[in-house]
Amino acid sequence: MHEDFLRHALRLAAGNARFGKGGPFGAVVVMDGKVIGEGVNQVTPANDPTAHAEIVAIRDACQRLERFELRGAAIYSSCEPCPMCLAAIYWARLDALFYAATRQDAARAGFDDEFLYRQVPLPPDERSLPSMRLLGGEGEEPFRLWLASEGRVGY
Amino acid sequence: MHEDFLRHALRLAAGNARFGKGGPFGAVVVMDGKVIGEGVNQVTPANDPTAHAEIVAIRDACQRLERFELRGAAIYSSCEPCPMCLAAIYWARLDALFYAATRQDAARAGFDDEFLYRQVPLPPDERSLPSMRLLGGEGEEPFRLWLASEGRVGY
Repeated sequence: MHEDFLRHALRLAAGNARFGKGGPFGAVVVMDGKVIGEGVNQVTPANDPTAHAEIVAIRDACQRLERFELRGAAIYSSCEPCPMCLAAIYWARLDALFYAATRQDAARAGFDDEFLYRQVPLPPDERSLPSMRLLGGEGEEPFRLWLASEGRVGY
Repeated sequence: MHEDFLRHALRLAAGNARFGKGGPFGAVVVMDGKVIGEGVNQVTPANDPTAHAEIVAIRDACQRLERFELRGAAIYSSCEPCPMCLAAIYWARLDALFYAATRQDAARAGFDDEFLYRQVPLPPDERSLPSMRLLGGEGEEPFRLWLASEGRVGY
């Protein structure tokens, strides 16, 4: 069962790789034994650096279900998710992750997944991305407004 | 200058928080002294758990420029990006990041940013998200096809 859904994701990845429409990645979201979302990498054809297969599949499932989270569902990805997609899987509240290739396989094919896994845990001033914190006090104002808003919908 | 763009992001965040349309976060992408992309958190109104302010701003800038990366631009975010958005900033090849509130401020307002920063670096089997690797050998096939594809566009 798990292997079947993962092969579905691998077929999507292979098709994308073969026809050069985007990176060699595919993913499916499954709930109650049915595919409820599909995605292939669309970074270059869609001009969207966030359009990784997992992100596309999560967005697809959420649009179909008209929900902003996917409790009760699992994601099957052709490759271990990069940190962007891993965090997206948490935010989507997915129950489980199944994958085939590893971040090291992705790195050998020229993708930054392994590099990003080393960057994310670093303190901001030790990362290769220059970053700076400014306006500390003012930064808390949106949260004060949020906590005071009676109609807020948490996630 | 940096403070002005960051206040722009904070105003977007405050407006979103006040009117309860989404989480209390805003971001702008700036190139050559001009705002080329804007975003507010749209997770709940858009039914999209990936629609954080930074992701929305990056997608907006890329659509406007018809490019899949943003070298030469910086992002200003009302709050330190979560790991999903931080990795998206790397994938977008942005030059720099400026932010106001911290992941701890976000945690106090009920958001998982700090938790996710602790989860991402863990080995998969130590994370709270159950995950499993299957079909290891088959997983490399999409990468083989990719590396053999003459028309591939890297990113």
